[in-house]
Amino acid sequence: MIETKKIAFSQFGEQLEEPIIAKMLTRALERPEYVSLAAGFTDSAMLPKSLIQEALSALSNEKGLPVFLQYGSIQGRPELREKIIEFLIRYPGEKNTYFSSENTIISNGSQQTLYLSMQVLCDPGDIVLVEGPSYFVFLELLKGLGIKAVSMPMSPDGCIDLPALDQWLQSMKEKNLLHKIKSVYLVSYYSNPSSHSMPLENKVGLASLLKKWDLLLPVMEDAAYRELYFTKPFPAPSVLSLEEYEDFPCLYLGTFSKPFSTGMKVGYGICTHDDWIEKMLYVKGHHDFGTANFNQALIEYILKKDLYENWLEPLHAHYKAKSDHFEEIAEAEGFRGLGWSWEKMQGGLLAWVKGPENLDTGLDSKFNQACLDNGVFYIPGDICFAEREPKNYVRLSIGTPSLDKLTEGLKRFIKIARQFT
Amino acid sequence: MIETKKIAFSQFGEQLEEPIIAKMLTRALERPEYVSLAAGFTDSAMLPKSLIQEALSALSNEKGLPVFLQYGSIQGRPELREKIIEFLIRYPGEKNTYFSSENTIISNGSQQTLYLSMQVLCDPGDIVLVEGPSYFVFLELLKGLGIKAVSMPMSPDGCIDLPALDQWLQSMKEKNLLHKIKSVYLVSYYSNPSSHSMPLENKVGLASLLKKWDLLLPVMEDAAYRELYFTKPFPAPSVLSLEEYEDFPCLYLGTFSKPFSTGMKVGYGICTHDDWIEKMLYVKGHHDFGTANFNQALIEYILKKDLYENWLEPLHAHYKAKSDHFEEIAEAEGFRGLGWSWEKMQGGLLAWVKGPENLDTGLDSKFNQACLDNGVFYIPGDICFAEREPKNYVRLSIGTPSLDKLTEGLKRFIKIARQFT
Repeated sequence: MIETKKIAFSQFGEQLEEPIIAKMLTRALERPEYVSLAAGFTDSAMLPKSLIQEALSALSNEKGLPVFLQYGSIQGRPELREKIIEFLIRYPGEKNTYFSSENTIISNGSQQTLYLSMQVLCDPGDIVLVEGPSYFVFLELLKGLGIKAVSMPMSPDGCIDLPALDQWLQSMKEKNLLHKIKSVYLVSYYSNPSSHSMPLENKVGLASLLKKWDLLLPVMEDAAYRELYFTKPFPAPSVLSLEEYEDFPCLYLGTFSKPFSTGMKVGYGICTHDDWIEKMLYVKGHHDFGTANFNQALIEYILKKDLYENWLEPLHAHYKAKSDHFEEIAEAEGFRGLGWSWEKMQGGLLAWVKGPENLDTGLDSKFNQACLDNGVFYIPGDICFAEREPKNYVRLSIGTPSLDKLTEGLKRFIKIARQFT
Repeated sequence: MIETKKIAFSQFGEQLEEPIIAKMLTRALERPEYVSLAAGFTDSAMLPKSLIQEALSALSNEKGLPVFLQYGSIQGRPELREKIIEFLIRYPGEKNTYFSSENTIISNGSQQTLYLSMQVLCDPGDIVLVEGPSYFVFLELLKGLGIKAVSMPMSPDGCIDLPALDQWLQSMKEKNLLHKIKSVYLVSYYSNPSSHSMPLENKVGLASLLKKWDLLLPVMEDAAYRELYFTKPFPAPSVLSLEEYEDFPCLYLGTFSKPFSTGMKVGYGICTHDDWIEKMLYVKGHHDFGTANFNQALIEYILKKDLYENWLEPLHAHYKAKSDHFEEIAEAEGFRGLGWSWEKMQGGLLAWVKGPENLDTGLDSKFNQACLDNGVFYIPGDICFAEREPKNYVRLSIGTPSLDKLTEGLKRFIKIARQFT
């Protein structure tokens, strides 16, 4: 490597820091023998190999255009976008008023749409309101762009504490800082990391409160885990179907990563505001002028042939069984008796576990070191808070490990929890 | 769509304009019956359907990990990166001193690496030196980020005019603006759009001149079309293997789009400077935390099984035949006699054709309208110049059309050229 000449980076480049996700991945790769309850990967046993194979065979035998190995468009395949809409409006309470293929952008995971959205909405120093906890990769994305994430006050039940938020907005008004708030980001179905879903009343209440303050801000609703319910879909419809949000520009984010294949990297955003989606598409044109047409064509085939919902069905039972197993082990090992607690999962891949008040589970904590020494990884909860505290939460994933590994990992973790009691 | 509330976009978002590529695509999609000599697509007859099918079957039958439908890493698959390096250093004059898999980043087409590079290197108002003409999607990317592209002076033979560049740098020094120049971008093999390749003397001369001015700038060499030579590889090695560039941080950009499948959207960058690649990886972590692992695994398989060079071989002859056909039609129709000229293609997909001095071929010109009325698309040359002039060039692609369509399109184009003589 050449280091003779120091590069004069941009201001943006100068302030960048290593993403925590990169650090975690590096650690995990260096210790393949450890049990990882950290990675938010799906279960490799449940990857759609044969479905992809079938789709590819069918597409390869098709004569003529559309040629799925050729460039597509910046916005993404029209028929894929239509099929996504058809799929989503089957959820309880969804309407097709704003769910439309024209409003849809296909991206490299929903992550890229988040990035595009933040590029066009926020200048450095602007504020995005998030839940506490929130998706830590999004928090890092904001930091990379110099945008400030602020956690909304939360109730112990995982909902947004609206009276407290009202007070906070009052204080922001007094400081003449309300104009700095540029967007709201919600992870409203089986949240990463909290596994909490946002009840209808809380969602509607938030809209009313924001309206009261005349903050008709762009609202981003991240539904990456929505498909991964255990028994039935979460009853609250998305912001795109709620009257109370009609005056808000909204962006719904979904993905085929978690429910289908993380390796395909196909996600999407559905945006109710013309200028907003148009600007995101402009930047998408600069990033890569379109997500891999090949991957889109394969998924489009699976949706067109009505194979997707059948595909999802066994996933519900599969992850429910893993969650039940998690509860059994935790029960058998007396985990709650050690001062730890969590909301029982109803979907998703993640258990969000609160430790004793004074425990520090951070990346450089003694507790984490003890877990590493005992061969188990987890995600420290503090990285999921914009303010990097509280410090006494952990995110444990049931996605990747087999039942045996999950048992082993959880036992290892609880052993350390016991030592720190 | 909701337009009741105007969004307060970021400064970045506010100044965005529709990418020209989007406009062109829209026009083309609206008129499928036209002949397009505009799109830089590859020939759909030459897409690797069976190779992809073979790779997928083989990977689907593999037991256990690595699971190609699962997440990969931010930087990209290690073995794919190794195989890319092994492939590249077989080109004449290449050395493996700086070609290394550790220096390699896999991205969504090489386009994304260009974007990452510009994000970390340049602030709005900074200058990037480009050739005249240069790759217009890169010029638009720069504009989107508020970065100023400046064309280096060029000789009539398509090389950089070094004495004139020397004078220009002198004038920049006098204006105390040399520090604004942050990078140099070269499209050095069968350039998009000019089809010109950069001779060794010109490349080496540029390094000497930049050194004379103590401008040891990051150099980006875009080799997207390098694999598409007609008879033999272009003899000049890349900047990564040239002693004269050893003091420059360098980034080599390559892709599997043009030579393999544009629909797979897998490209790469190879960067000789630690901090530079590290920062690009940080931002890649925010954009999408890694290019689709699935696509990488398929291409990795093809490289590992030594299928790639065999795959490329018929491409050389195929595009050479199309270029020969282009020359024949042009000859038969007396194209040069109408005051048009071009450098005969030695590789790539593009003919760069100069019209009579006073002709305006721009997007809104009478000439373009006449071509559209006659059912033929082309890329106006002015969009390939940072300064949007001269106006009398066109880029004609031999990639997409069949021989019949190419004949038809070229005849239609020449008919209009004749009318404007």
